[in-house]
Formats: sequence, C-alpha cells, structure tokens
Amino acid sequence: MTNKESLSIIKIGGNVVDNPDALKSFLNDLNKLEGRKLLVHGGGVMASKMAKELGIETKMIDGRRVTDADTLRTVTMVYAGWINKSIVSALQAIGCNAIGLSGADANTIPSVRRSPEPIDFGYVGDPNPNKINDKFISQLVESGLTPVFCAITHDEKGALLNTNADTVANTLAAAMSKSYKTTLYYCFEKEGVLRDIDNPESLIKTITKEEAEALKIEGVIAGGMIPKIDNSFKAIDGGVSEVVILHADNLLAKRGTVLL
Amino acid sequence: MTNKESLSIIKIGGNVVDNPDALKSFLNDLNKLEGRKLLVHGGGVMASKMAKELGIETKMIDGRRVTDADTLRTVTMVYAGWINKSIVSALQAIGCNAIGLSGADANTIPSVRRSPEPIDFGYVGDPNPNKINDKFISQLVESGLTPVFCAITHDEKGALLNTNADTVANTLAAAMSKSYKTTLYYCFEKEGVLRDIDNPESLIKTITKEEAEALKIEGVIAGGMIPKIDNSFKAIDGGVSEVVILHADNLLAKRGTVLL
Repeated sequence: MTNKESLSIIKIGGNVVDNPDALKSFLNDLNKLEGRKLLVHGGGVMASKMAKELGIETKMIDGRRVTDADTLRTVTMVYAGWINKSIVSALQAIGCNAIGLSGADANTIPSVRRSPEPIDFGYVGDPNPNKINDKFISQLVESGLTPVFCAITHDEKGALLNTNADTVANTLAAAMSKSYKTTLYYCFEKEGVLRDIDNPESLIKTITKEEAEALKIEGVIAGGMIPKIDNSFKAIDGGVSEVVILHADNLLAKRGTVLL
Repeated sequence: MTNKESLSIIKIGGNVVDNPDALKSFLNDLNKLEGRKLLVHGGGVMASKMAKELGIETKMIDGRRVTDADTLRTVTMVYAGWINKSIVSALQAIGCNAIGLSGADANTIPSVRRSPEPIDFGYVGDPNPNKINDKFISQLVESGLTPVFCAITHDEKGALLNTNADTVANTLAAAMSKSYKTTLYYCFEKEGVLRDIDNPESLIKTITKEEAEALKIEGVIAGGMIPKIDNSFKAIDGGVSEVVILHADNLLAKRGTVLL
C-alpha cells in the first residue's frame, strides 16, 4: 500500500462568513496552509436577513427551520451564489486557485431528502456517504485546485436540498479518506472544547470517545457542541485521521481540541 | 495535425430561463444533443424582479444598467446561485453530468473591469480572450461533464463582475476552438434572422459577413440583433467553425440562421 497524501478539510461557519475582516484574515491563513485542501462554508445569518428582506416568513418546528420553496431559493441564492462566489474570487485574488461547488455540481454530494413524516422540514437532506463523487473531487485537488463547497446538495431527482454544513464537511472528509490522509478542522467561535466556557485557558487539548461521553454527562460538552462532537467521532469512524475543533484564528497554529 | 473533436457551445437567455416549461423542454433537448457540450445561460428578468423585491433601485445611464454593489450581489445570487444550481440539478436528474461555474471558479474567465471613464457602469467587465482557462474546461469536458456557465466573471483582484452572457458564450467558444471544432448556438426568441420579423417562414438560412453588412443597411438586422451578429462573426474570426442563431425549440433540428 502506498503512503497517502494529506488533505485538509476546513469548515467555517457564521462567525467567519458574517464578518468581512475575519473572513479576509481566514482566507489568507487558508491560502498559507500547506498542502491539499478543501473548504466547506456555512451561511451565517445572511440567509435569514435576506429572507426577512424578501418578506419570507421563517417557519420553525421544534426549534428547527422549515425549508419551504421560497426559503430554498433564498438559501441557494445566498450560499451557492453570493457567499460561495465571493469566497472564490477573494481566494483567486490572493493566488489560491479555488473552485466553488454545490453538491449538485458534478453530482459531488447526492443526498437523501428527509422523510416528511412525522414532521415535514421541506427541502432538507443528508448526504449519502456511499455516493460522494470522491473521484472527481480528487481530480480537482490533484489539478492544484481548492474546492469550496457550500451546504446546498441535491436529491438526484431535480430538487436542491438545504444541508447542514458540519454534516457536509464530515461526510466529505470521510469519503476523501479512501484516497487521502485527512484532517478535518471544524472552525467555530471558541478556541475548542473549554472546561470553563468563559476561560480560553481551560482548553481541553485532546478528547477520546470515552472522555467525550463523560464530558457530556458533566455538562462540559453541551448544546450545539454535542452534534459537533458526535459528527467528529462519526468522521473518525469513517476513516478521518484527525478532527480538530478550533477557532478560525488558530488554523495555522492548529491549536484547538484534537479528537482521538 | 489530429482531427479535432466537436464541441457545442449553447447560449440561452431569458425566454428559456424565465419559463419553467420552456426550460424543462430545452434541458431535455440539450441532454439529447450528441457529443461534448457546454451551456451558457443569461439571467432573464429574475434578477430585476429580485432587485425590485429587495428595494434596490435600477440605475440606468444611456439605456444601460449600472451594476452597483447591491446590484452585483443580487445578480450573483440569482445567476450563480438560483438559476445556475437549478439548471445543474435539473440536468443531473435526467442523467446529464452538469457542473455549474462562474468565471471566478478555477479562474475560468478572467475579465477586465470596464473603465469608469467616461461613464462608470460599476461592477461590469469583459472576458479577457487570452486568459480563458480552456485547459481546465477541456479537462472537465473530457471527464464527461457538461459545464454550465452563468455570466458572472471576476477581475482576478477580488471583484466579481456582471458580464454579458452573449460575450461569455462567444469568448468561451473562441478559446475552446484551440482544442475543438466548435459550433456556437445562440438561442433566442425568434427562429433566426428573419427577413420579415413577423413571418417565421422568412428565415434567412445562411449569412456571410458581407451579407450581414448589407442586411444591416436594409434594416433587416437591427436593434438587439446587431451585437448578436457582430459577436457571432467575432467568434468565427476567433476560430469558431460555425455559429447558428436559432430558437431553443429548434436546437436538436439545428434549424436557424447559420453564419458563415
């Protein structure tokens, strides 16, 4: 067996995308990050702002957004259109040969639309981990390109689907692990998993699966951190070599919580 | 010298993009069109509608739209986001492996922003014919993909640019002619160049450059047809084998006005 090349998969969310200075600084760091890489971006609050401007009512069921046809159009415009192409042109300007993609493009991320039963969340879906077009993504990466994915996928039957960006990132990371030694960087607003959420010094440097379960019981891993951690271990089970949860500012230093 | 493979470059505009039934029918025909192909789409009236919904005032100077920052964001959302990804997912659903691109993606279409003197039209630019990334586009086509371009390009300095879709199509066609025997199909609302605009039977089947000049003087080629014809002969001068001006319904029959 040959040694695999390394591939970094970096996911950024609203705290970077919504802040022009933070985004500029992040993209500069991304450009400096050595080796093959792939970016996945969320949409931040811009889609909600746009929906509000367009008079589209945000429908929530059980605290989760319903993606009706108007909302799907809005998120596709914002994520696949403005945010994705702004990131690509900004990367091109600093010499990083980026290519923006949705999961429909080149059928990179076929997804399964969520069942309308018991609750219909509309045009929402989850990537099919067995159908990722890793061959084509590898071809892009080997051509020296940096793919930039938004979190819009499709069901292969003509419907675009609003998809969780963390899930897109971990599914891509797992699929690319067939051909690469992959590291998945989840950038978010904190330095990593903190024992005391108000104290950046309390960063937990490594967490095993067993430790994660204990930290959940202790309440250190709580709220939005729970799916992030679960997704991370799912990625590791799927073949990802390393998952790092960190602040976007610390990408080059690779300083954050490493999940083992 | 080896024989070149054929490549069809098809441009569609508002009369197809704005009409769901016409678009569906066109995409089915496109899928049936044999051989290598590449689509360029305009934006139709959706961008203007969206701008209106968002309360963005349409500024016109000398009858031409000014693309200010808000307008650029709107056209990028609509063209590169909603229209482009809707077309890609619809093509994927019928078995055509499409990939949606703006000119920023993989630096496929570097453009030159129009000078702000004497009139500043804002974020508007024209493709640099010498810098088209034809090598990468060929790579996609040879992988069995159908590239789908929206008419958003970039200046390589971080600015996205609103670009004329006809110009994108003829510039791409000329650049691809280095490697392929290219045919450029300009789909529009008429059957081709008509001697009597109200009579489809009066279709002029072929037009040479000299004949075109005479038809301009006669007033048969007038209005919006003038830049289309000029663009077409520019494409032929750039190496394109054949340009056909036709109605989208007649793509498979290849029935329209052939420019020689």
